[in-house]
Amino acid sequence: MAYLGIADEDFIRGKVPMTKQEIRILTIAKARLSSEDVVYDIGAGTGALSVEAARQVMRGHVYALERHQEGVQLIRANAEKFQVHNLTVLETEAPAGIETLPYCDCVLIGGSGSRLRPILEAVDGKLRKGGRILLNCITIQTLSEAIDFFRAHPAGFRYETIQVQVNRLRQIGPYDMAQAQNSIYILCALKQDGNLADSSDGEQDANA
Amino acid sequence: MAYLGIADEDFIRGKVPMTKQEIRILTIAKARLSSEDVVYDIGAGTGALSVEAARQVMRGHVYALERHQEGVQLIRANAEKFQVHNLTVLETEAPAGIETLPYCDCVLIGGSGSRLRPILEAVDGKLRKGGRILLNCITIQTLSEAIDFFRAHPAGFRYETIQVQVNRLRQIGPYDMAQAQNSIYILCALKQDGNLADSSDGEQDANA
Amino acid sequence: MAYLGIADEDFIRGKVPMTKQEIRILTIAKARLSSEDVVYDIGAGTGALSVEAARQVMRGHVYALERHQEGVQLIRANAEKFQVHNLTVLETEAPAGIETLPYCDCVLIGGSGSRLRPILEAVDGKLRKGGRILLNCITIQTLSEAIDFFRAHPAGFRYETIQVQVNRLRQIGPYDMAQAQNSIYILCALKQDGNLADSSDGEQDANA
Amino acid sequence: MAYLGIADEDFIRGKVPMTKQEIRILTIAKARLSSEDVVYDIGAGTGALSVEAARQVMRGHVYALERHQEGVQLIRANAEKFQVHNLTVLETEAPAGIETLPYCDCVLIGGSGSRLRPILEAVDGKLRKGGRILLNCITIQTLSEAIDFFRAHPAGFRYETIQVQVNRLRQIGPYDMAQAQNSIYILCALKQDGNLADSSDGEQDANA
Repeated sequence: MAYLGIADEDFIRGKVPMTKQEIRILTIAKARLSSEDVVYDIGAGTGALSVEAARQVMRGHVYALERHQEGVQLIRANAEKFQVHNLTVLETEAPAGIETLPYCDCVLIGGSGSRLRPILEAVDGKLRKGGRILLNCITIQTLSEAIDFFRAHPAGFRYETIQVQVNRLRQIGPYDMAQAQNSIYILCALKQDGNLADSSDGEQDANA
Repeated sequence: MAYLGIADEDFIRGKVPMTKQEIRILTIAKARLSSEDVVYDIGAGTGALSVEAARQVMRGHVYALERHQEGVQLIRANAEKFQVHNLTVLETEAPAGIETLPYCDCVLIGGSGSRLRPILEAVDGKLRKGGRILLNCITIQTLSEAIDFFRAHPAGFRYETIQVQVNRLRQIGPYDMAQAQNSIYILCALKQDGNLADSSDGEQDANA
Repeated sequence: MAYLGIADEDFIRGKVPMTKQEIRILTIAKARLSSEDVVYDIGAGTGALSVEAARQVMRGHVYALERHQEGVQLIRANAEKFQVHNLTVLETEAPAGIETLPYCDCVLIGGSGSRLRPILEAVDGKLRKGGRILLNCITIQTLSEAIDFFRAHPAGFRYETIQVQVNRLRQIGPYDMAQAQNSIYILCALKQDGNLADSSDGEQDANA
Repeated sequence: MAYLGIADEDFIRGKVPMTKQEIRILTIAKARLSSEDVVYDIGAGTGALSVEAARQVMRGHVYALERHQEGVQLIRANAEKFQVHNLTVLETEAPAGIETLPYCDCVLIGGSGSRLRPILEAVDGKLRKGGRILLNCITIQTLSEAIDFFRAHPAGFRYETIQVQVNRLRQIGPYDMAQAQNSIYILCALKQDGNLADSSDGEQDANA
């Protein structure tokens, strides 16, 4: 398994915003991926999270959904740069396209446009029991909407939320000077009781 | 007394870095200025802290020391804009110039170049018993050097230090999105036992 | 005017939670109180914010609303300790009681139980044009509800929100060790267009 | 390879302080462990970091050094609980004992008592070229001393430092309420040029 936590500057970025290294590390670690897992990355942006996930699920697969063509090209470029072969990019505005995907073990949501609820409903229909949804939120509204969804969900999710603030200490001459990164909320929701896909369905269960 | 906490955008700034509003508020509040206090502002930059202090010490005086000419002009421009008349600007590289100033009740140190220790020694010689030194530090080295000074000081300072991190929530369409400001250490040192000046000495106390 | 930023340990506290010094300082500073202002403190708890506000509005008045008897007694004890005479405590569960109060210039909301919206509606009816509402929020839900209110309000509020995280550096032997305080959201809403009271109306301004 | 990021409550803890899950995740990820790596964990405490590291270096080994007997027993208990067999505990006050260990690829320093410099000197003599030292610091003094060491080191380390602050959102009734964890500095130093052990020495290099 490849290491987790590729340096930010090693990704091809263009001007597309990118989840920073520390947030990627915490997000992927809290996803507790197994090597055969199927993962969706919704609003994949540069593909940084997709690539990190693909390197952890060596015998699984990552589906990266991204609506902007520039993003789609960056994801492909980064997949190629990091020699990731288990990553499929879909140029689509989620939730469109989710219905075509296989059941999954984990959903990463870095960007949702303003369609968070329909995205959550669509991926919930695909997520196995015991599966995880990981959201990175930078706005109060997105976090609130997600929390409302998980609190109200009939089938039952348990979730935990952290807010992470990272300062990098830049070395400037003889000084180490704190430079703030924007704080991020990371919400990790664990599906308690599947209503569509059940993890007891045979072989695929072995990896769950 | 004028309000504390002028909005950042109300200062004339140029490209000189400026202590942000929340940090100015906390720094000035922790300085516990009285209306007759004499205050030094070392490394005064744009004069934002100087102006805020001058508005709190209406019958006192603020001496702003700044080595860069651009800064000196900004301080004068801000003093004029906010109608502050009890503020004197010295174009000097501290500690040079401190020996010419009257005894003081409070010292604000926002910038020290790399001369923190000689500055602390010079202002200590001018600071009355019960007076306060407030440092805003953005580097580990400056903070460490200041703490070392106050821990070792024979006459005795008590100090407290906080680190403050402020996120502003920018309103972008329907969203409120956290934007980090750099974290700052605020150290407040209280002089326990004056070795030069005593605050009970009458006249100097009045106008300082 | 008395200094802003009484030390936490100087208040009589019991077991009632208290807004910490740095948060009180920022909240009161952003309230931009004038000496004649009328202030409500809703969910006043120990009265720490009430006392700080009362010391800033020396010719104005503070009305502290608190539903718990223990809190009411603490507020009275703190008012007495700090010799604050322009502070009236009401034992009531807001919004009950607000209708009996004079028009106001500022509302501080530290605690709202689960009645934030009716409280906001009630105080809005009392708040002068140009007046300010300051909220300290520790939960996502309270912050979201407040933002929703101000965004939707017909008379027009402008608001700014910050999140503040303070670490205190405890001195333990030769070390200075960061100890985190819980982060707080401070929302400051400025009333743009009064629908009930106008701050230019003379007499009411005097005692308000 | 086992997942990274065991839940805090899954460790046997006693009253020994423990590095929290998010900090363990970031520390181990930034260590970029390979499966054959030899790792020292200095000041291992409960063994939480040791166990996480041991699960990442399945064909390598972790040496946990801990001076307190209570800690030693906790480390052993946690190793047993998590079925970790490549972990050796040494009851010793580092740097004592380091001279007996094999060369290593990574050093984790969670606690150093007040012997950071001699510990850094001792582990530097054992660390291969390209190896990493990871420090978790909670005091300014420890961070400063580490930075001074790496800046002055003749053989050349490059280092990066981050400060991480995590708030957990506790679910209390209908609310999600931020609860701060203490902020931690994580320093990651990469050895540029080995003076004792050289990574060009054949087989072991393959895994580096």
